[in-house]
Amino acid sequence: MGLETVSTNRAHGGTQGVYKHASSETGTEMEFSVFVPDHEEGAKLPVVFYLSGLTCSQANVTEKGEFRRACAELGLIFVAPDTSPRGEGVPDDAEGAYDFGLGAGFYVNATEAPFDRHYKMRDYIERELPDLIGAEFPADMDRVSIMGHSMGGHGALTIALRNPERYKAVSAFAPIVSPLNCPWGEKALTGYLGADRGAWREYDACALIEDGARLPEILVDQGTADNFLEGQLKPELLAEACAAADQSLTLRMQEGYDHSYFFISSFMADHLEWHAVRL
Amino acid sequence: MGLETVSTNRAHGGTQGVYKHASSETGTEMEFSVFVPDHEEGAKLPVVFYLSGLTCSQANVTEKGEFRRACAELGLIFVAPDTSPRGEGVPDDAEGAYDFGLGAGFYVNATEAPFDRHYKMRDYIERELPDLIGAEFPADMDRVSIMGHSMGGHGALTIALRNPERYKAVSAFAPIVSPLNCPWGEKALTGYLGADRGAWREYDACALIEDGARLPEILVDQGTADNFLEGQLKPELLAEACAAADQSLTLRMQEGYDHSYFFISSFMADHLEWHAVRL
Repeated sequence: MGLETVSTNRAHGGTQGVYKHASSETGTEMEFSVFVPDHEEGAKLPVVFYLSGLTCSQANVTEKGEFRRACAELGLIFVAPDTSPRGEGVPDDAEGAYDFGLGAGFYVNATEAPFDRHYKMRDYIERELPDLIGAEFPADMDRVSIMGHSMGGHGALTIALRNPERYKAVSAFAPIVSPLNCPWGEKALTGYLGADRGAWREYDACALIEDGARLPEILVDQGTADNFLEGQLKPELLAEACAAADQSLTLRMQEGYDHSYFFISSFMADHLEWHAVRL
Repeated sequence: MGLETVSTNRAHGGTQGVYKHASSETGTEMEFSVFVPDHEEGAKLPVVFYLSGLTCSQANVTEKGEFRRACAELGLIFVAPDTSPRGEGVPDDAEGAYDFGLGAGFYVNATEAPFDRHYKMRDYIERELPDLIGAEFPADMDRVSIMGHSMGGHGALTIALRNPERYKAVSAFAPIVSPLNCPWGEKALTGYLGADRGAWREYDACALIEDGARLPEILVDQGTADNFLEGQLKPELLAEACAAADQSLTLRMQEGYDHSYFFISSFMADHLEWHAVRL
Protein backbone atom coordinates (compact mmCIF):
# COMPACT_ATOMS: atom_id res chain seq x y z
CA MET A 1 0.00 0.00 0.00
CA GLY A 2 2.99 2.29 -0.60
CA LEU A 3 2.30 5.94 -1.23
CA GLU A 4 4.15 8.03 -3.80
CA THR A 5 4.24 11.81 -3.52
CA VAL A 6 3.44 13.51 -6.81
CA SER A 7 3.77 17.06 -5.50
CA THR A 8 3.54 19.15 -2.36
CA ASN A 9 2.99 22.89 -2.12
CA ARG A 10 2.81 25.06 0.94
CA ALA A 11 -0.56 26.82 1.03
CA HIS A 12 -2.66 28.69 3.58
CA GLY A 13 -0.53 27.59 6.50
CA GLY A 14 -0.52 23.92 5.58
CA THR A 15 0.63 21.43 2.98
CA GLN A 16 -1.30 20.65 -0.20
CA GLY A 17 -0.10 17.33 -1.52
CA VAL A 18 -0.95 15.10 -4.46
CA TYR A 19 -0.23 11.40 -4.05
CA LYS A 20 -0.65 8.15 -5.94
CA HIS A 21 -0.71 4.51 -4.99
CA ALA A 22 -1.45 1.11 -6.44
CA SER A 23 -5.05 0.39 -5.46
CA SER A 24 -5.94 -3.21 -4.71
CA GLU A 25 -9.65 -2.44 -5.10
CA THR A 26 -9.47 -0.89 -8.58
CA GLY A 27 -6.35 -2.72 -9.73
CA THR A 28 -5.00 0.57 -11.02
CA GLU A 29 -2.83 3.41 -9.89
CA MET A 30 -5.05 5.96 -8.13
CA GLU A 31 -4.22 9.61 -7.55
CA PHE A 32 -5.69 11.82 -4.82
CA SER A 33 -4.94 15.09 -3.07
CA VAL A 34 -4.68 15.79 0.65
CA PHE A 35 -4.44 19.13 2.44
CA VAL A 36 -2.98 18.94 5.94
CA PRO A 37 -3.01 22.11 8.06
CA ASP A 38 -0.02 22.79 10.26
CA HIS A 39 -0.55 21.10 13.61
CA GLU A 40 1.25 20.14 16.78
CA GLU A 41 3.51 17.13 16.52
CA GLY A 42 1.59 13.99 17.31
CA ALA A 43 -1.81 15.64 16.86
CA LYS A 44 -4.50 13.82 14.89
CA LEU A 45 -6.89 15.94 12.85
CA PRO A 46 -10.43 15.19 11.66
CA VAL A 47 -10.83 14.37 7.98
CA VAL A 48 -13.28 15.58 5.33
CA PHE A 49 -13.57 13.46 2.19
CA TYR A 50 -14.67 15.39 -0.92
CA LEU A 51 -16.03 13.42 -3.88
CA SER A 52 -15.92 15.14 -7.27
CA GLY A 53 -18.38 15.17 -10.14
CA LEU A 54 -18.45 13.88 -13.70
CA THR A 55 -15.32 14.52 -15.80
CA CYS A 56 -13.31 15.66 -12.77
CA SER A 57 -10.14 14.32 -11.23
CA GLN A 58 -8.72 15.39 -7.87
CA ALA A 59 -7.32 18.45 -9.62
CA ASN A 60 -10.54 20.44 -10.08
CA VAL A 61 -11.36 20.91 -6.43
CA THR A 62 -7.70 21.07 -5.46
CA GLU A 63 -7.18 24.05 -7.76
CA LYS A 64 -10.58 25.73 -7.67
CA GLY A 65 -12.39 24.56 -4.52
CA GLU A 66 -11.18 27.32 -2.15
CA PHE A 67 -11.20 24.92 0.80
CA ARG A 68 -7.70 25.47 2.19
CA ARG A 69 -8.25 28.69 4.09
CA ALA A 70 -11.23 27.26 5.96
CA CYS A 71 -9.53 23.90 6.55
CA ALA A 72 -6.48 25.66 7.99
CA GLU A 73 -8.63 27.77 10.29
CA LEU A 74 -10.76 24.81 11.37
CA GLY A 75 -7.98 22.23 11.59
CA LEU A 76 -9.43 19.87 8.99
CA ILE A 77 -7.63 17.46 6.68
CA PHE A 78 -9.25 17.56 3.21
CA VAL A 79 -9.02 14.48 0.97
CA ALA A 80 -10.02 14.59 -2.71
CA PRO A 81 -9.93 11.28 -4.60
CA ASP A 82 -10.33 10.67 -8.32
CA THR A 83 -13.72 9.85 -9.85
CA SER A 84 -12.86 6.56 -11.53
CA PRO A 85 -10.04 4.15 -12.19
CA ARG A 86 -7.86 5.18 -15.12
CA GLY A 87 -5.03 3.79 -17.21
CA GLU A 88 -4.30 1.15 -19.75
CA GLY A 89 -6.86 -1.63 -19.78
CA VAL A 90 -9.56 0.31 -17.95
CA PRO A 91 -12.71 0.21 -20.11
CA ASP A 92 -14.42 3.46 -21.00
CA ASP A 93 -17.79 4.44 -22.42
CA ALA A 94 -18.19 2.80 -25.84
CA GLU A 95 -18.52 6.20 -27.48
CA GLY A 96 -16.23 8.05 -25.10
CA ALA A 97 -19.12 9.98 -23.54
CA TYR A 98 -18.37 12.08 -20.46
CA ASP A 99 -21.05 10.54 -18.27
CA PHE A 100 -19.92 6.91 -18.10
CA GLY A 101 -16.59 5.15 -17.69
CA LEU A 102 -13.47 7.24 -17.18
CA GLY A 103 -14.17 10.20 -14.90
CA ALA A 104 -17.63 8.79 -14.16
CA GLY A 105 -17.30 5.88 -11.74
CA PHE A 106 -20.46 6.87 -9.81
CA TYR A 107 -18.96 5.48 -6.58
CA VAL A 108 -20.35 1.98 -7.18
CA ASN A 109 -18.90 -1.53 -7.20
CA ALA A 110 -19.61 -2.55 -10.79
CA THR A 111 -20.98 -6.04 -11.34
CA GLU A 112 -21.31 -5.96 -15.12
CA ALA A 113 -18.46 -6.99 -17.43
CA PRO A 114 -16.14 -5.44 -18.48
CA PHE A 115 -16.50 -2.83 -15.75
CA ASP A 116 -16.56 -5.23 -12.82
CA ARG A 117 -12.80 -5.65 -12.86
CA HIS A 118 -11.65 -2.05 -12.18
CA TYR A 119 -14.74 -0.02 -11.30
CA LYS A 120 -14.77 -0.64 -7.54
CA MET A 121 -15.08 2.97 -6.45
CA ARG A 122 -17.45 2.13 -3.58
CA ASP A 123 -14.96 -0.10 -1.81
CA TYR A 124 -12.14 2.22 -2.75
CA ILE A 125 -13.79 5.22 -1.10
CA GLU A 126 -15.44 3.38 1.78
CA ARG A 127 -12.52 1.17 2.77
CA GLU A 128 -9.21 1.30 0.98
CA LEU A 129 -8.68 5.05 0.85
CA PRO A 130 -9.69 5.68 4.49
CA ASP A 131 -7.30 2.93 5.60
CA LEU A 132 -4.53 4.55 3.59
CA ILE A 133 -5.28 8.03 4.95
CA GLY A 134 -5.32 6.71 8.50
CA ALA A 135 -1.99 4.97 7.99
CA GLU A 136 -0.12 7.68 6.14
CA PHE A 137 -1.45 11.03 7.45
CA PRO A 138 -1.99 12.62 10.89
CA ALA A 139 -5.67 11.72 10.69
CA ASP A 140 -8.15 10.91 13.44
CA MET A 141 -10.22 8.30 11.62
CA ASP A 142 -12.83 8.39 14.38
CA ARG A 143 -13.67 11.92 13.24
CA VAL A 144 -14.49 11.66 9.55
CA SER A 145 -17.07 13.34 7.35
CA ILE A 146 -17.91 13.37 3.65
CA MET A 147 -19.12 15.82 1.05
CA GLY A 148 -19.31 15.99 -2.72
CA HIS A 149 -20.52 17.70 -5.87
CA SER A 150 -23.05 16.39 -8.41
CA MET A 151 -22.05 12.75 -9.02
CA GLY A 152 -19.84 13.20 -5.96
CA GLY A 153 -22.80 14.52 -3.99
CA HIS A 154 -24.57 11.29 -4.90
CA GLY A 155 -21.48 9.43 -3.73
CA ALA A 156 -21.29 11.32 -0.43
CA LEU A 157 -24.98 10.88 0.36
CA THR A 158 -25.14 7.18 -0.49
CA ILE A 159 -21.88 6.30 1.23
CA ALA A 160 -22.93 8.15 4.39
CA LEU A 161 -26.43 6.64 4.34
CA ARG A 162 -24.92 3.14 4.13
CA ASN A 163 -22.38 3.93 6.89
CA PRO A 164 -24.09 6.33 9.29
CA GLU A 165 -21.87 5.25 12.18
CA ARG A 166 -18.72 6.19 10.29
CA TYR A 167 -19.41 9.71 9.01
CA LYS A 168 -20.07 12.47 11.52
CA ALA A 169 -21.43 14.81 8.87
CA VAL A 170 -22.49 14.74 5.23
CA SER A 171 -23.20 17.54 2.80
CA ALA A 172 -23.47 18.01 -0.93
CA PHE A 173 -23.35 20.64 -3.65
CA ALA A 174 -25.93 20.05 -6.39
CA PRO A 175 -26.07 16.28 -5.85
CA ILE A 176 -27.61 13.66 -8.09
CA VAL A 177 -30.17 12.63 -5.48
CA SER A 178 -31.78 9.74 -7.34
CA PRO A 179 -29.94 7.87 -10.09
CA LEU A 180 -33.08 5.74 -10.43
CA ASN A 181 -34.85 8.83 -11.72
CA CYS A 182 -32.49 10.68 -14.03
CA PRO A 183 -30.75 9.99 -17.36
CA TRP A 184 -27.21 10.14 -15.91
CA GLY A 185 -28.13 7.61 -13.26
CA GLU A 186 -30.05 5.30 -15.54
CA LYS A 187 -27.21 5.12 -18.02
CA ALA A 188 -24.50 4.64 -15.40
CA LEU A 189 -26.26 2.12 -13.18
CA THR A 190 -27.45 0.08 -16.17
CA GLY A 191 -23.86 -0.04 -17.38
CA TYR A 192 -22.25 -0.83 -14.05
CA LEU A 193 -24.97 -2.89 -12.34
CA GLY A 194 -27.21 -4.24 -15.08
CA ALA A 195 -30.92 -3.89 -15.77
CA ASP A 196 -32.25 -5.05 -12.37
CA ARG A 197 -33.26 -1.77 -10.80
CA GLY A 198 -33.61 -3.41 -7.41
CA ALA A 199 -29.82 -3.66 -7.30
CA TRP A 200 -29.58 0.11 -7.81
CA ARG A 201 -31.33 1.05 -4.59
CA GLU A 202 -28.22 0.96 -2.43
CA TYR A 203 -26.76 3.55 -4.82
CA ASP A 204 -29.70 5.94 -4.68
CA ALA A 205 -29.97 8.38 -1.77
CA CYS A 206 -33.76 8.65 -2.02
CA ALA A 207 -34.22 4.87 -2.20
CA LEU A 208 -31.86 4.32 0.74
CA ILE A 209 -33.94 6.72 2.83
CA GLU A 210 -37.16 5.07 1.67
CA ASP A 211 -35.63 1.72 2.64
CA GLY A 212 -34.87 2.93 6.17
CA ALA A 213 -31.39 4.47 6.15
CA ARG A 214 -31.05 7.55 8.35
CA LEU A 215 -28.51 10.26 9.11
CA PRO A 216 -28.63 12.83 11.90
CA GLU A 217 -28.66 15.65 9.35
CA ILE A 218 -28.05 16.35 5.67
CA LEU A 219 -26.95 19.70 4.21
CA VAL A 220 -27.47 20.39 0.49
CA ASP A 221 -26.81 23.57 -1.49
CA GLN A 222 -28.32 23.77 -4.98
CA GLY A 223 -28.01 26.65 -7.44
CA THR A 224 -31.21 27.83 -9.10
CA ALA A 225 -29.36 28.58 -12.38
CA ASP A 226 -27.89 25.08 -12.61
CA ASN A 227 -28.38 23.70 -16.15
CA PHE A 228 -28.88 20.22 -14.74
CA LEU A 229 -31.39 21.14 -12.05
CA GLU A 230 -34.61 19.94 -13.66
CA GLY A 231 -33.36 17.14 -15.90
CA GLN A 232 -30.84 15.40 -13.69
CA LEU A 233 -30.53 16.68 -10.12
CA LYS A 234 -34.15 17.02 -8.94
CA PRO A 235 -33.56 18.05 -5.33
CA GLU A 236 -37.32 17.94 -4.78
CA LEU A 237 -37.09 14.13 -4.84
CA LEU A 238 -34.70 14.24 -1.89
CA ALA A 239 -36.91 16.75 -0.09
CA GLU A 240 -39.92 14.47 -0.58
CA ALA A 241 -38.07 11.33 0.52
CA CYS A 242 -36.74 13.09 3.63
CA ALA A 243 -40.15 14.56 4.49
CA ALA A 244 -41.83 11.16 4.15
CA ALA A 245 -39.18 9.50 6.31
CA ASP A 246 -38.78 12.27 8.90
CA GLN A 247 -35.12 12.58 7.84
CA SER A 248 -33.62 15.97 8.75
CA LEU A 249 -32.59 17.89 5.61
CA THR A 250 -31.35 21.44 5.12
CA LEU A 251 -31.84 22.17 1.41
CA ARG A 252 -30.74 25.66 0.42
CA MET A 253 -31.67 26.89 -3.05
CA GLN A 254 -28.99 29.44 -3.96
CA GLU A 255 -30.38 32.09 -6.29
CA GLY A 256 -28.51 32.52 -9.56
CA TYR A 257 -25.74 29.99 -8.91
CA ASP A 258 -24.88 27.38 -11.55
CA HIS A 259 -23.20 23.95 -11.51
CA SER A 260 -19.58 25.16 -11.65
CA TYR A 261 -16.77 25.60 -9.18
CA PHE A 262 -17.80 29.25 -8.98
CA PHE A 263 -20.81 27.89 -7.10
CA ILE A 264 -18.96 25.27 -5.09
CA SER A 265 -16.20 27.63 -3.98
CA SER A 266 -18.80 30.19 -2.87
CA PHE A 267 -20.26 27.84 -0.27
CA MET A 268 -17.27 25.62 0.51
CA ALA A 269 -16.31 27.49 3.68
CA ASP A 270 -19.93 27.31 4.88
CA HIS A 271 -19.95 23.55 4.44
CA LEU A 272 -16.59 23.07 6.13
CA GLU A 273 -17.75 25.11 9.13
CA TRP A 274 -20.87 22.94 9.29
CA HIS A 275 -18.69 19.82 9.18
CA ALA A 276 -16.22 21.13 11.77
CA VAL A 277 -18.97 21.66 14.34
CA ARG A 278 -19.99 18.03 13.94
CA LEU A 279 -16.44 16.63 13.94
CA MET B 1 -14.84 50.14 -27.71
CA GLY B 2 -17.69 47.63 -27.61
CA LEU B 3 -17.54 44.95 -24.99
CA GLU B 4 -18.53 41.33 -25.62
CA THR B 5 -19.48 39.07 -22.72
CA VAL B 6 -17.76 35.69 -22.94
CA SER B 7 -19.27 34.28 -19.74
CA THR B 8 -20.74 35.26 -16.41
CA ASN B 9 -21.06 33.13 -13.30
CA ARG B 10 -22.58 33.99 -9.99
CA ALA B 11 -19.94 33.57 -7.27
CA HIS B 12 -19.45 34.63 -3.65
CA GLY B 13 -22.33 37.08 -3.74
CA GLY B 14 -21.25 38.78 -6.94
CA THR B 15 -20.75 38.27 -10.66
CA GLN B 16 -17.59 36.82 -12.17
CA GLY B 17 -17.46 37.78 -15.82
CA VAL B 18 -15.09 37.23 -18.70
CA TYR B 19 -15.19 39.80 -21.49
CA LYS B 20 -13.41 40.60 -24.74
CA HIS B 21 -13.04 43.69 -26.87
CA ALA B 22 -11.12 44.99 -29.87
CA SER B 23 -8.18 46.88 -28.40
CA SER B 24 -7.00 49.94 -30.27
CA GLU B 25 -3.68 49.85 -28.42
CA THR B 26 -2.73 46.27 -29.23
CA GLY B 27 -4.67 46.02 -32.48
CA THR B 28 -6.00 42.66 -31.31
CA GLU B 29 -8.95 41.23 -29.48
CA MET B 30 -8.17 41.29 -25.75
CA GLU B 31 -9.86 39.16 -23.09
CA PHE B 32 -10.08 40.02 -19.39
CA SER B 33 -12.08 39.03 -16.34
CA VAL B 34 -13.97 41.25 -13.91
CA PHE B 35 -15.55 40.35 -10.57
CA VAL B 36 -18.25 42.75 -9.40
CA PRO B 37 -19.68 42.27 -5.90
CA ASP B 38 -23.37 42.85 -5.43
CA HIS B 39 -23.94 46.53 -4.64
CA GLU B 40 -26.67 49.13 -4.34
CA GLU B 41 -27.98 50.46 -7.62
CA GLY B 42 -25.99 53.46 -8.74
CA ALA B 43 -23.08 52.72 -6.37
CA LYS B 44 -19.52 52.98 -7.70
CA LEU B 45 -16.98 50.55 -6.27
CA PRO B 46 -13.19 50.85 -6.04
CA VAL B 47 -11.17 48.75 -8.48
CA VAL B 48 -8.14 46.49 -8.02
CA PHE B 49 -6.19 45.61 -11.17
CA TYR B 50 -4.32 42.30 -11.00
CA LEU B 51 -1.52 41.66 -13.51
CA SER B 52 -0.58 38.04 -14.13
CA GLY B 53 2.77 36.38 -14.67
CA LEU B 54 4.54 34.60 -17.51
CA THR B 55 2.46 32.05 -19.47
CA CYS B 56 -0.78 33.16 -17.80
CA SER B 57 -3.99 34.56 -19.23
CA GLN B 58 -6.82 36.05 -17.19
CA ALA B 59 -7.96 32.50 -16.47
CA ASN B 60 -5.27 31.48 -13.96
CA VAL B 61 -6.11 34.01 -11.29
CA THR B 62 -9.81 33.92 -12.14
CA GLU B 63 -9.91 30.18 -11.40
CA LYS B 64 -7.24 29.82 -8.73
CA GLY B 65 -6.67 33.24 -7.15
CA GLU B 66 -9.25 32.95 -4.32
CA PHE B 67 -9.97 36.69 -4.47
CA ARG B 68 -13.76 36.67 -4.72
CA ARG B 69 -14.67 36.08 -1.10
CA ALA B 70 -12.49 38.97 0.08
CA CYS B 71 -13.60 41.25 -2.78
CA ALA B 72 -17.25 40.58 -1.93
CA GLU B 73 -16.67 41.30 1.76
CA LEU B 74 -14.63 44.44 1.03
CA GLY B 75 -16.72 45.73 -1.88
CA LEU B 76 -13.90 45.64 -4.46
CA ILE B 77 -14.10 45.16 -8.21
CA PHE B 78 -11.27 42.87 -9.36
CA VAL B 79 -9.97 43.18 -12.94
CA ALA B 80 -7.59 40.60 -14.44
CA PRO B 81 -6.26 41.35 -17.95
CA ASP B 82 -4.29 39.09 -20.24
CA THR B 83 -0.47 39.16 -20.31
CA SER B 84 0.07 39.90 -24.00
CA PRO B 85 -1.70 40.45 -27.28
CA ARG B 86 -2.67 37.19 -28.98
CA GLY B 87 -4.08 36.04 -32.29
CA GLU B 88 -3.17 35.75 -35.93
CA GLY B 89 -0.33 38.01 -36.94
CA VAL B 90 0.94 38.62 -33.41
CA PRO B 91 4.65 37.70 -33.39
CA ASP B 92 5.92 35.25 -30.78
CA ASP B 93 9.32 34.23 -29.48
CA ALA B 94 11.38 32.86 -32.38
CA GLU B 95 11.67 29.50 -30.62
CA GLY B 96 8.30 29.60 -28.89
CA ALA B 97 9.88 30.05 -25.46
CA TYR B 98 7.55 30.81 -22.55
CA ASP B 99 9.38 33.93 -21.42
CA PHE B 100 8.98 36.20 -24.44
CA GLY B 101 6.18 37.01 -26.87
CA LEU B 102 2.78 35.42 -26.32
CA GLY B 103 1.92 35.30 -22.61
CA ALA B 104 4.96 37.44 -21.85
CA GLY B 105 4.27 41.04 -22.81
CA PHE B 106 6.11 42.42 -19.75
CA TYR B 107 3.74 45.41 -19.62
CA VAL B 108 5.90 47.52 -21.95
CA ASN B 109 5.29 49.50 -25.13
CA ALA B 110 7.58 47.67 -27.54
CA THR B 111 9.70 49.79 -29.85
CA GLU B 112 11.52 47.02 -31.70
CA ALA B 113 10.11 45.44 -34.85
CA PRO B 114 8.18 43.24 -35.28
CA PHE B 115 6.85 43.60 -31.71
CA ASP B 116 6.19 47.34 -31.86
CA ARG B 117 2.94 46.85 -33.72
CA HIS B 118 0.93 44.79 -31.17
CA TYR B 119 2.92 44.70 -27.93
CA LYS B 120 1.56 47.88 -26.32
CA MET B 121 0.68 46.40 -22.96
CA ARG B 122 1.81 49.50 -21.04
CA ASP B 123 -0.69 51.78 -22.75
CA TYR B 124 -3.30 49.03 -22.69
CA ILE B 125 -3.08 48.60 -18.92
CA GLU B 126 -2.41 52.24 -18.03
CA ARG B 127 -4.99 53.86 -20.30
CA GLU B 128 -7.25 51.80 -22.53
CA LEU B 129 -8.40 49.17 -20.06
CA PRO B 130 -9.10 51.61 -17.18
CA ASP B 131 -11.14 53.76 -19.58
CA LEU B 132 -13.12 50.70 -20.62
CA ILE B 133 -13.67 49.58 -17.02
CA GLY B 134 -14.82 53.06 -16.04
CA ALA B 135 -17.25 53.18 -18.94
CA GLU B 136 -18.69 49.68 -18.71
CA PHE B 137 -18.70 48.73 -15.02
CA PRO B 138 -19.93 50.31 -11.75
CA ALA B 139 -16.37 51.46 -11.04
CA ASP B 140 -15.12 54.50 -9.13
CA MET B 141 -12.02 55.24 -11.19
CA ASP B 142 -10.82 57.73 -8.57
CA ARG B 143 -10.30 54.75 -6.26
CA VAL B 144 -8.02 52.36 -8.12
CA SER B 145 -5.14 50.15 -7.03
CA ILE B 146 -2.88 47.60 -8.69
CA MET B 147 -1.23 44.32 -7.82
CA GLY B 148 0.44 41.47 -9.66
CA HIS B 149 2.46 38.28 -9.63
CA SER B 150 6.00 37.75 -10.93
CA MET B 151 6.07 39.48 -14.35
CA GLY B 152 2.76 41.02 -13.27
CA GLY B 153 4.35 42.16 -10.01
CA HIS B 154 6.92 43.93 -12.15
CA GLY B 155 4.05 45.42 -14.14
CA ALA B 156 2.17 46.57 -11.05
CA LEU B 157 5.24 48.14 -9.42
CA THR B 158 6.45 49.96 -12.54
CA ILE B 159 2.99 51.16 -13.58
CA ALA B 160 2.30 52.49 -10.07
CA LEU B 161 5.74 54.12 -9.78
CA ARG B 162 5.15 55.95 -13.07
CA ASN B 163 1.60 56.96 -12.04
CA PRO B 164 1.69 57.49 -8.27
CA GLU B 165 -1.25 59.90 -8.39
CA ARG B 166 -3.48 57.28 -10.04
CA TYR B 167 -3.04 54.18 -7.86
CA LYS B 168 -3.99 54.37 -4.19
CA ALA B 169 -2.15 51.15 -3.35
CA VAL B 170 0.29 48.73 -4.94
CA SER B 171 1.38 45.26 -3.93
CA ALA B 172 3.04 42.26 -5.49
CA PHE B 173 3.52 38.54 -5.11
CA ALA B 174 7.05 37.41 -5.98
CA PRO B 175 7.68 40.29 -8.41
CA ILE B 176 10.48 40.64 -10.91
CA VAL B 177 11.91 43.73 -9.20
CA SER B 178 14.66 44.54 -11.68
CA PRO B 179 14.50 43.38 -15.30
CA LEU B 180 17.86 45.13 -15.78
CA ASN B 181 19.36 42.51 -13.48
CA CYS B 182 17.82 39.15 -14.34
CA PRO B 183 17.76 36.83 -17.37
CA TRP B 184 13.97 37.10 -17.91
CA GLY B 185 14.21 40.88 -17.96
CA GLU B 186 17.32 41.08 -20.10
CA LYS B 187 15.81 38.83 -22.74
CA ALA B 188 12.42 40.54 -22.78
CA LEU B 189 13.57 44.15 -22.71
CA THR B 190 16.24 43.52 -25.34
CA GLY B 191 13.58 42.01 -27.55
CA TYR B 192 10.91 44.65 -26.97
CA LEU B 193 13.07 47.78 -26.45
CA GLY B 194 16.45 47.06 -28.02
CA ALA B 195 19.97 47.06 -26.62
CA ASP B 196 19.99 50.55 -25.09
CA ARG B 197 19.61 49.79 -21.40
CA GLY B 198 18.87 53.41 -20.64
CA ALA B 199 15.49 52.91 -22.29
CA TRP B 200 14.76 50.04 -19.90
CA ARG B 201 14.82 52.14 -16.75
CA GLU B 202 11.18 53.18 -16.91
CA TYR B 203 10.34 49.46 -16.90
CA ASP B 204 12.46 48.57 -13.86
CA ALA B 205 11.04 49.18 -10.38
CA CYS B 206 14.46 49.55 -8.78
CA ALA B 207 15.69 51.95 -11.47
CA LEU B 208 12.50 54.01 -11.25
CA ILE B 209 13.04 54.40 -7.49
CA GLU B 210 16.71 55.25 -8.03
CA ASP B 211 15.61 57.86 -10.56
CA GLY B 212 13.26 59.51 -8.08
CA ALA B 213 9.84 57.80 -8.38
CA ARG B 214 8.06 57.35 -5.06
CA LEU B 215 4.95 55.67 -3.69
CA PRO B 216 3.42 56.07 -0.24
CA GLU B 217 3.94 52.37 0.47
CA ILE B 218 4.75 49.08 -1.28
CA LEU B 219 3.74 45.61 -0.06
CA VAL B 220 5.57 42.53 -1.36
CA ASP B 221 5.16 38.88 -0.38
CA GLN B 222 7.88 36.49 -1.51
CA GLY B 223 8.07 32.75 -0.85
CA THR B 224 11.36 31.38 0.39
CA ALA B 225 10.90 28.14 -1.58
CA ASP B 226 10.36 29.96 -4.88
CA ASN B 227 12.49 28.36 -7.61
CA PHE B 228 13.04 31.75 -9.21
CA LEU B 229 14.03 33.61 -6.05
CA GLU B 230 17.78 33.83 -6.48
CA GLY B 231 18.12 33.76 -10.27
CA GLN B 232 15.29 36.03 -11.37
CA LEU B 233 13.32 37.76 -8.62
CA LYS B 234 16.01 39.08 -6.24
CA PRO B 235 13.82 40.96 -3.76
CA GLU B 236 16.98 42.16 -2.02
CA LEU B 237 17.54 44.55 -4.94
CA LEU B 238 14.18 46.19 -4.23
CA ALA B 239 14.94 46.31 -0.51
CA GLU B 240 18.27 48.01 -1.22
CA ALA B 241 16.78 50.50 -3.68
CA CYS B 242 13.98 51.38 -1.24
CA ALA B 243 16.37 51.72 1.69
CA ALA B 244 18.69 54.00 -0.30
CA ALA B 245 15.76 56.17 -1.42
CA ASP B 246 13.81 56.19 1.85
CA GLN B 247 10.92 54.49 0.02
CA SER B 248 8.55 52.66 2.38
CA LEU B 249 8.54 48.91 1.67
CA THR B 250 6.95 46.00 3.50
CA LEU B 251 8.76 42.90 2.23
CA ARG B 252 7.50 39.69 3.80
CA MET B 253 9.50 36.52 3.20
CA GLN B 254 6.98 33.68 3.47
CA GLU B 255 8.64 30.52 4.72
CA GLY B 256 8.23 27.47 2.50
CA TYR B 257 5.98 29.06 -0.13
CA ASP B 258 6.79 28.66 -3.83
CA HIS B 259 5.94 30.59 -7.02
CA SER B 260 2.54 29.02 -7.67
CA TYR B 261 -1.07 29.99 -7.15
CA PHE B 262 -0.96 27.95 -3.93
CA PHE B 263 1.25 30.80 -2.68
CA ILE B 264 -0.72 33.64 -4.27
CA SER B 265 -4.09 32.38 -3.06
CA SER B 266 -2.71 32.03 0.48
CA PHE B 267 -2.01 35.75 0.78
CA MET B 268 -4.56 37.19 -1.66
CA ALA B 269 -7.07 38.13 1.06
CA ASP B 270 -4.29 39.81 3.05
CA HIS B 271 -3.38 41.94 0.06
CA LEU B 272 -6.96 42.83 -0.73
CA GLU B 273 -7.55 43.93 2.86
CA TRP B 274 -4.41 46.07 2.63
CA HIS B 275 -5.69 47.60 -0.61
CA ALA B 276 -9.20 48.18 0.75
CA VAL B 277 -7.90 50.24 3.66
CA ARG B 278 -6.12 52.52 1.16
CA LEU B 279 -9.02 52.74 -1.29
